[in-house]
Amino acid sequence: MSKFLHTKYSSLTPYDTSGEVESMKGYIRLNTNESPFPPSPLAVEYSHRASIGLNYYCDPECSQLAAKIAEMYSLKPSQIVFGNGSDEILNFLFMAFCEKGAAFPNITYSFYKILAKFHGVDCVTVPLKGFRVDPSYYRDMRGRTIFIANPNAPTSLAMSLSDIEAVITSNPASLVVVDEAYVDFGADSAVTLLPKYDSLVITRTFSKSRSLAGARLGWCMTSEELAADIRNIKNTLTPYNINAMTQAAGLGALEDEEYTRRNIDMIRRVRDNTRTRLQEMGFEVLDSSANFLFAKHGSISGEKIFSSLKKYKIMIRHFSNPPAIADYNRITIGTPEQMQMFLEVVKGITENETE
Amino acid sequence: MSKFLHTKYSSLTPYDTSGEVESMKGYIRLNTNESPFPPSPLAVEYSHRASIGLNYYCDPECSQLAAKIAEMYSLKPSQIVFGNGSDEILNFLFMAFCEKGAAFPNITYSFYKILAKFHGVDCVTVPLKGFRVDPSYYRDMRGRTIFIANPNAPTSLAMSLSDIEAVITSNPASLVVVDEAYVDFGADSAVTLLPKYDSLVITRTFSKSRSLAGARLGWCMTSEELAADIRNIKNTLTPYNINAMTQAAGLGALEDEEYTRRNIDMIRRVRDNTRTRLQEMGFEVLDSSANFLFAKHGSISGEKIFSSLKKYKIMIRHFSNPPAIADYNRITIGTPEQMQMFLEVVKGITENETE
Repeated sequence: MSKFLHTKYSSLTPYDTSGEVESMKGYIRLNTNESPFPPSPLAVEYSHRASIGLNYYCDPECSQLAAKIAEMYSLKPSQIVFGNGSDEILNFLFMAFCEKGAAFPNITYSFYKILAKFHGVDCVTVPLKGFRVDPSYYRDMRGRTIFIANPNAPTSLAMSLSDIEAVITSNPASLVVVDEAYVDFGADSAVTLLPKYDSLVITRTFSKSRSLAGARLGWCMTSEELAADIRNIKNTLTPYNINAMTQAAGLGALEDEEYTRRNIDMIRRVRDNTRTRLQEMGFEVLDSSANFLFAKHGSISGEKIFSSLKKYKIMIRHFSNPPAIADYNRITIGTPEQMQMFLEVVKGITENETE
Repeated sequence: MSKFLHTKYSSLTPYDTSGEVESMKGYIRLNTNESPFPPSPLAVEYSHRASIGLNYYCDPECSQLAAKIAEMYSLKPSQIVFGNGSDEILNFLFMAFCEKGAAFPNITYSFYKILAKFHGVDCVTVPLKGFRVDPSYYRDMRGRTIFIANPNAPTSLAMSLSDIEAVITSNPASLVVVDEAYVDFGADSAVTLLPKYDSLVITRTFSKSRSLAGARLGWCMTSEELAADIRNIKNTLTPYNINAMTQAAGLGALEDEEYTRRNIDMIRRVRDNTRTRLQEMGFEVLDSSANFLFAKHGSISGEKIFSSLKKYKIMIRHFSNPPAIADYNRITIGTPEQMQMFLEVVKGITENETE
């Protein structure tokens, strides 16, 4: 730390990108919840076309993307703001709307805590109940902004819309953010609740179901008034946050919903099959609505499963903290071939260990 | 403004992107300091190749770009951090290093003031002397971080390295940031001072000389210690800030220095010729080291020149504030053909007005 650094940043905890930076050549990557399928050919074509004109600044409003998404969800374009991944949207939300603090599950996307700490936001972590978000635990949040990932990560479980609505109605003074990064894989979107509540923000990403993790594109949908606040922050800090190629790739992906639908169907089929196979091998596997599974073995530790798979050049995600999930691993759903390989290796590990 | 917005952001001043968002079809755009030349074919090719693999997260460290730039400037890759345009780097700097305030010229890149205000940074604006940054005005800055654009915008004038060094040495308690967005068009880079001073940060962009404004790529070069601080901020807020296509486009541009060199030479030739022609028409034109000119006519107001050109679908940049520059306009250097057209129209305006 240099002598020039602002004292408030003297103990930062950066997001752990080690899963991604590790040299992964030749590995089967089931550790970062990416799509195993390449982006739509239309996304590739559109971004290529956009690259020719990169000498000009990109559209700060992402007008074409906003119009398209507005049409998809029967919203106005002014209700939509784009971010450099939904992470950037989350950053804006922690920055802009957490004067009275934040609340989120004690086991959820780790980035919430990192952002809260960075922005000096006082935060409360709310326990899960049997790995589920229980709305009855979210009473009297006293104006804190509530962040809920649906489905939750790394637990993979979805929350019903009525449960989300219960959180909203029992906290009229709170903003409620529903992070729908994985919603396309099986949960119901809260977008249908937007006309009813002006305290709801929904965040989305192109990184998962639309195979654009490396393009960095996310967005939020909310009331026009809240969107105006978020856009104001965005236009003050980083007016041109979405480059022209990414805007074009996103538009291509949205215009090829058939491709996205096929990939989602495949991932869900492979996921459910993988879950059954793991259960047959003695794993407890939560009922996933996401593109990953959260699983622990009846007798082999989570760390052991993780490190044994790594020896076979298969990466899954292990969390040593909190202790409640240390025996679980998060397994991204890959292609059918990758999961076949994964299951064979896991079978060998379980047979070896339980002999 | 919604009731949820943090009170500290109740009066934001977003950056003015109107020059860019205005429907510009059919206009000659000499108002946003973009390059009139498309990106290098290698940038286009590399980004296209990268788009195929967008389902995977991008490299958070931009390792290939860092290695290439380190080699170009005899630095270590760890001395380099990338941003979503140099604007994002500037944002990190205002956030991280301005606990004791900031200082910058009263006429300079307007984003400094916007960022300072956003982050609650106490700032001092230092007058120019005959439109030049005078180092003698930068004594006793009391630990404030000093931001100097070299060449300065919108004035186009370059500062000598000895003057920059004078600012550094007379402020041992201050960080000095040299914003070299336009340096390739004629100023000397302070990169040669890096080994001597551990309080120097240099910011750069691919938006101007490398024709990648729409790709959003900038970087900074500094000591390893300061770079580690900046990287820490970056990795906390936005670990994947540079998407894979932009990383690839940047690499392509750097590997095609011959193309960049040719474009710079052309812009400098056209700039100097345009300056002479404007002077012949009664304009006072500052001695530009950038890809734009800063000019006022002897008898016609800046606003009049601007609005008359707009009628002919030629956009230049007019600043109504501060009053000291209200009679000047900033004119981006376009292609020879565009500048020929521009000069013909300006000639007509001046002849018409002075008849």
